[in-house]
Amino acid sequence: MLDVQKVRGDFPILSREVNGKPLVYLDNGASAQKPQVVIDAITTAYSHEYANVHRGLHYLSNLATEKYEGVRGIIARFLGVADESQIVLNSGTTEGINMVAYGWAMPRFQPGDEIVLSVMEHHANIVPWHFLRERQGAVLKWVDTDVNGALDPQKVIDAIGPRTKLVAITHLSNVLGTKVDVKTICAAARAKGVAVLVDGSQAAVHMSVDVDDIGCDFYAVTGHKLYGPSGSGAIYVRRERMDEMRPFLGGGDMIRDVTKEAVTYNDPPMKFEAGTPGIVQTIGLGAALDYMMGLGMENIAAHENRLRDYAAERLGGLNWLQVQGQAPDKAAIFSFTMDGAGHAHDISTILDKKGVAVRAGHHCAGPLMDHLGVTATCRASFGLYNTEAEVDALIDALELCHDLFA
Amino acid sequence: MLDVQKVRGDFPILSREVNGKPLVYLDNGASAQKPQVVIDAITTAYSHEYANVHRGLHYLSNLATEKYEGVRGIIARFLGVADESQIVLNSGTTEGINMVAYGWAMPRFQPGDEIVLSVMEHHANIVPWHFLRERQGAVLKWVDTDVNGALDPQKVIDAIGPRTKLVAITHLSNVLGTKVDVKTICAAARAKGVAVLVDGSQAAVHMSVDVDDIGCDFYAVTGHKLYGPSGSGAIYVRRERMDEMRPFLGGGDMIRDVTKEAVTYNDPPMKFEAGTPGIVQTIGLGAALDYMMGLGMENIAAHENRLRDYAAERLGGLNWLQVQGQAPDKAAIFSFTMDGAGHAHDISTILDKKGVAVRAGHHCAGPLMDHLGVTATCRASFGLYNTEAEVDALIDALELCHDLFA
Repeated sequence: MLDVQKVRGDFPILSREVNGKPLVYLDNGASAQKPQVVIDAITTAYSHEYANVHRGLHYLSNLATEKYEGVRGIIARFLGVADESQIVLNSGTTEGINMVAYGWAMPRFQPGDEIVLSVMEHHANIVPWHFLRERQGAVLKWVDTDVNGALDPQKVIDAIGPRTKLVAITHLSNVLGTKVDVKTICAAARAKGVAVLVDGSQAAVHMSVDVDDIGCDFYAVTGHKLYGPSGSGAIYVRRERMDEMRPFLGGGDMIRDVTKEAVTYNDPPMKFEAGTPGIVQTIGLGAALDYMMGLGMENIAAHENRLRDYAAERLGGLNWLQVQGQAPDKAAIFSFTMDGAGHAHDISTILDKKGVAVRAGHHCAGPLMDHLGVTATCRASFGLYNTEAEVDALIDALELCHDLFA
Repeated sequence: MLDVQKVRGDFPILSREVNGKPLVYLDNGASAQKPQVVIDAITTAYSHEYANVHRGLHYLSNLATEKYEGVRGIIARFLGVADESQIVLNSGTTEGINMVAYGWAMPRFQPGDEIVLSVMEHHANIVPWHFLRERQGAVLKWVDTDVNGALDPQKVIDAIGPRTKLVAITHLSNVLGTKVDVKTICAAARAKGVAVLVDGSQAAVHMSVDVDDIGCDFYAVTGHKLYGPSGSGAIYVRRERMDEMRPFLGGGDMIRDVTKEAVTYNDPPMKFEAGTPGIVQTIGLGAALDYMMGLGMENIAAHENRLRDYAAERLGGLNWLQVQGQAPDKAAIFSFTMDGAGHAHDISTILDKKGVAVRAGHHCAGPLMDHLGVTATCRASFGLYNTEAEVDALIDALELCHDLFA
């Protein structure tokens, strides 16, 4: 069981005030705060252990390389991947999915070939596929959620046709909190010879993930949502897909030999990691994942599930508030609109005056907004350091907000 | 004039020992160390001022956005760019040049179209063009240096033919230290309607750069060499090239509207900045550039030029050592080989025992190694915090090395 007060002490920013009120940070879906161990890892790296990696032979370069490369194994363990050479280190999910789009999909998509997507996808898992549509005639096939925001895996499987080359799907919606049964989807897709890319940006934050068990071809995560530094991340790429994938970014480190006439490439995963990487961010991400695993992903999930249930109950008691997404299996992410509130932005601004940080907007999920029939929502998204008292603070601020708009 | 002892006090890592000896860090060409102001900027951002940028309305998000976006202006000022909307923030030169290759060159290169390159280019400014050769038949035209490692700008200009669409050239060689007269090249190329990409990864570290005066179309820099965080950087893109360039990475922030059917893009430079950016690294880069400008680029250059002259004289006195690159206008970067040393790696390893960090290898410059007729060199590359005493330490260690191999 997670000792939330102790955990809160690990995050220096949580003791600050905003607008004269204690910070109630409920914008974890956009980015999470960082524990002191992550900040310390960064400081130590820059103050005592910094050099460029891989290409040096001197002490600091070897030390930095060892720390940096050690994170590949931490990420593999965190994601349930037995073979860490299937982990490509990068700057986050956006880079990861674009790498798959440019490196794997682009050379093998013919006009009319299809990508199956859910309507809940984040723009990071939409725009790269729109590029393929615009540039080489790929077809995007969308699968809707039901009225509760749940996604029937069978509907995704049924959308796979003879021209489908890829299913690109979120493991957990950043707007609705809906969890998706990606394992069932992967098994069916694999039987049909179709690759599956799972956007794990949100899921990996809130639950234990076992990529080898899921059986996907690509699994993307982003460090800054995982309590790690901005500009850190990774993507799992199944060995066979790595063998099929051409290099994406060109530069140092990903090559074996470069002449005027030709270039030969390094072995995977290095083949897909060009140039000086995000050395210190990656080291910080390792510290963040160690921190999470130290708390225990089951404990984090249990804590957040309690918060979810409490928040669901309290938000459900506000009959002038509409929560979007009531899937039976969802995380502690609540998007809502309010009677009388002209725009979600107004709610966010008023909540901010009370120190409550929530996000308002389309949450980088345009097709889902269209599906829900709204232009924007407010979103309160919880993390491992949030408390029931913060749910109460949210409710109080929302009631004030309602009074102002009523 | 730069007070180098005071400056050294700003860099915590410089007071550490390596292998029982004071660290003599001469691997600045690979990556530079970080001053305390950069480390503090990172710590402050994560401890007190962190949230995701652009899309939030709450206090911390606005604060982080303000700090992050403020760096665009700092970079513009540092590079001599009047209009900061021509600065695209990214993770470094590798990403910047790949963006140009995928976003600008790829849609406009026909088979047989040419790119003119110098033989001194870093792999980051070679491999993306080899991709264009491999994938769509572009032709790479190479311009050699003279026997001293100098590059005659007229030879570059003469290499521009009717099929040339781009000149991609370094401003300062990471191996030889040679400075290139890119302004003369740009003027001639512009008269012929040919775009010029300048790799400023090294030049911006060692000298005052005025991009508007140079008149190039693209100018790429990388933060970790500029005393800033790993995973930070920027590229200047001339307005007309921005208008021609299609988006590279797809994701959040770079869009205006996303539906199931279509996507419309944000205005530049946002159009070229997808997803959650390297928020804190960029803030750290701003602190690094402010630090450099506070010291004064002219003072930094003058200090390094003194170091260069002193090192050139002392290295020149070792008649068993061959310095590669004797261009009249060069920076304090010295690549060398040694009589009797089987491999540059051996030299590096022995120097390391004396606390002297240099790099050995091909320095991500395969074609230049071929041109020089070597497989690898040792490289001592100086930065703003290095001293004449460190030159002496290098010489002492080299003499020991020579004794061992002789």
